[in-house]
Amino acid sequence: MQIAIPIYDGVTALDAIGPYEPLSRIPGADVRFVGAEPGPKECDTRALSLVAGYSVEEVLSPDVIVVPGGEGSRRESGDALLPWIRSVHPTTRWTTSVCTGSLLLGKAGVLDGLEATSHWIYLDMLRDYGAKPSHDRVVEQGKVVTAAGVSSGIDMALRLIQLEAGDELAKAIQLSIEYDPQPPFDAGSPDKAPDQLVELVRAVERGQADDGG
Amino acid sequence: MQIAIPIYDGVTALDAIGPYEPLSRIPGADVRFVGAEPGPKECDTRALSLVAGYSVEEVLSPDVIVVPGGEGSRRESGDALLPWIRSVHPTTRWTTSVCTGSLLLGKAGVLDGLEATSHWIYLDMLRDYGAKPSHDRVVEQGKVVTAAGVSSGIDMALRLIQLEAGDELAKAIQLSIEYDPQPPFDAGSPDKAPDQLVELVRAVERGQADDGG
Repeated sequence: MQIAIPIYDGVTALDAIGPYEPLSRIPGADVRFVGAEPGPKECDTRALSLVAGYSVEEVLSPDVIVVPGGEGSRRESGDALLPWIRSVHPTTRWTTSVCTGSLLLGKAGVLDGLEATSHWIYLDMLRDYGAKPSHDRVVEQGKVVTAAGVSSGIDMALRLIQLEAGDELAKAIQLSIEYDPQPPFDAGSPDKAPDQLVELVRAVERGQADDGG
Repeated sequence: MQIAIPIYDGVTALDAIGPYEPLSRIPGADVRFVGAEPGPKECDTRALSLVAGYSVEEVLSPDVIVVPGGEGSRRESGDALLPWIRSVHPTTRWTTSVCTGSLLLGKAGVLDGLEATSHWIYLDMLRDYGAKPSHDRVVEQGKVVTAAGVSSGIDMALRLIQLEAGDELAKAIQLSIEYDPQPPFDAGSPDKAPDQLVELVRAVERGQADDGG
């Protein structure tokens, strides 16, 4: 099974690496990090680059695509991947996204008429692309599966493995990455965090987005 | 606050990226991926490289180090970082590891006499370095903090942020990465998964380790 993860300058690393880690453990998985051009892609923090080993021309019919988000999803570095997303989507088994990767799926026309999710701060933007925003952590609409912000891609990937290969492999991979989450607080979604904190995080994130940061 | 994440060929990407993502959101964080030599480091899957932007000679007194694991922790690519770990540890505020990164801390002499954790499959190896294996997900021993397998670095990083900067910032960062985990199964630790699955995963992982994979 060929799994393509398109990356671009301004990507959020955990959006990509969260699902990559479990998906790469499917026996026979051929995981390819794909760029509009191959080579290093600078993450949104500018503290790290992930290397795209393949260009989009080299990955023409992946079985699965996982589109990560990040501030680059709202600028041309992300938009450079739209023709490829449009071209490969008709023949995928699963077309998926994490965080604001769903904005790229939206811009590519994949989400029109579908329920979908994204990072909670950007969820309403999905309406611009004809999608119906959902507050679920993982939203399944046929072969199109979108996940919420940043860390949600781990949950989505385990669900994909379950759908594709069954419960036993999904559990085995969960155990192999010791995914027994124990966050020190229960503040990971806007439904659970105090309103004041939600507004603070929204303001900080939107401020950075306005700076192009 | 300077946060150094040493990487090497054979690193497990999520071990590094799990804690990187929350730690990089601390205001003023200066996160540096460090290599024995700078440049791309091939992950254990061989499907991805992470780029070390700095050599160990350029990062001489980090406030925090986060040592990730991976099969390279059991061969010379990981061992090449031992002199650096020994050299920076005395002046860190926090010396930490994820997964089999604790084997590198052990080899560097950091864990002698301390409780520590690792990926559950490799936990007993900590005894070789004078450490007392713990089944806790995050083990704090003064400034030395070790985390369990692969995905546990996210939990550890949020705990570090709490200790260093307080509850509010830790909650804000948890919310910003939407860390509201919803794994589809409760099979993420050997205490929770069926015994048969535990033995299967152990056999597969040990087989890959014997192959050098």
